[in-house]
Amino acid sequence: MPLIEIDLPRAVFADHHAAMGAAVQTAQFDALGVPMDDTFQIFRPHEGDELKFDPAYNQVDRLGLIVIRITPVRIYSVEQKKALFAGIVEGLEQLGIRREDLLILISENAWEDWYAGRP
Amino acid sequence: MPLIEIDLPRAVFADHHAAMGAAVQTAQFDALGVPMDDTFQIFRPHEGDELKFDPAYNQVDRLGLIVIRITPVRIYSVEQKKALFAGIVEGLEQLGIRREDLLILISENAWEDWYAGRP
Amino acid sequence: MPLIEIDLPRAVFADHHAAMGAAVQTAQFDALGVPMDDTFQIFRPHEGDELKFDPAYNQVDRLGLIVIRITPVRIYSVEQKKALFAGIVEGLEQLGIRREDLLILISENAWEDWYAGRP
Repeated sequence: MPLIEIDLPRAVFADHHAAMGAAVQTAQFDALGVPMDDTFQIFRPHEGDELKFDPAYNQVDRLGLIVIRITPVRIYSVEQKKALFAGIVEGLEQLGIRREDLLILISENAWEDWYAGRP
Repeated sequence: MPLIEIDLPRAVFADHHAAMGAAVQTAQFDALGVPMDDTFQIFRPHEGDELKFDPAYNQVDRLGLIVIRITPVRIYSVEQKKALFAGIVEGLEQLGIRREDLLILISENAWEDWYAGRP
Repeated sequence: MPLIEIDLPRAVFADHHAAMGAAVQTAQFDALGVPMDDTFQIFRPHEGDELKFDPAYNQVDRLGLIVIRITPVRIYSVEQKKALFAGIVEGLEQLGIRREDLLILISENAWEDWYAGRP
């Protein structure tokens, strides 16, 4: 925990999944102080028709859609969230993944809402 | 944002995904005022064994299961949510999708919990 | 409702999905009083590369990763959540599923956030 869920085009998964996982992990460490070995990531590769988006909504020039949902405990500040988004965007950009194609969202819960391999 | 996630039988996806996406988008516009081009939708087609439900729970006559999760910012009233559910149900019914087979849920978060292609 | 979402290795799904669904349902009944026929479960089988975890984080000896997300209405106590986790862990252990490989999380919402086949 946090849990990371990434829905993405199959080709992006095939080319980059390992480096993407590492980039998100590094961003979590840098922005939130999450340990580097606190890794729980689900990748869901998709065919083209399964990811629907508008190529221009809100003046963003989208060519694809990659959705990253982060579920952490409700303990992080707005500033930390901004730093997390910036860290993920920059880390993925180094892999050739366009920042315009990203949708990142946070869904918070509480400490009591987790079981992670032991009580 | 909102993000729409739809887990559904593969056959329903194959026959109706484009019209389903449009129907949900229209319902969002009508009930919540979400712009028509604010589209972020994930479809996840499933084989039969992957979706488990009871065919009669709560006196509903189910033949299948389609799960729609909506993740919006926490700004909508109970009345707007009811209107959203009604709009989705009616829009999908026009495609031949039974209202009894739908499970729709809302998971809210905050403005600060989103990155949508730019800060 | 609650909605259960289980992301798991394809081999575990193939061998155990029916019994896993029943075990989670029983744990919900025992810990939360959810009716036995109140069943809404999504299984998402994955290839190996799609589930990423650390084999030793927090001194847990992981060999695999199975993620179970439970989305209930916000009405359950911390004690009930602990009982739910314990019930799921024990039920799955009887199928040969290691408790160390489980990540279970709860994401709550409100009564008004559900449509389940009828208003």
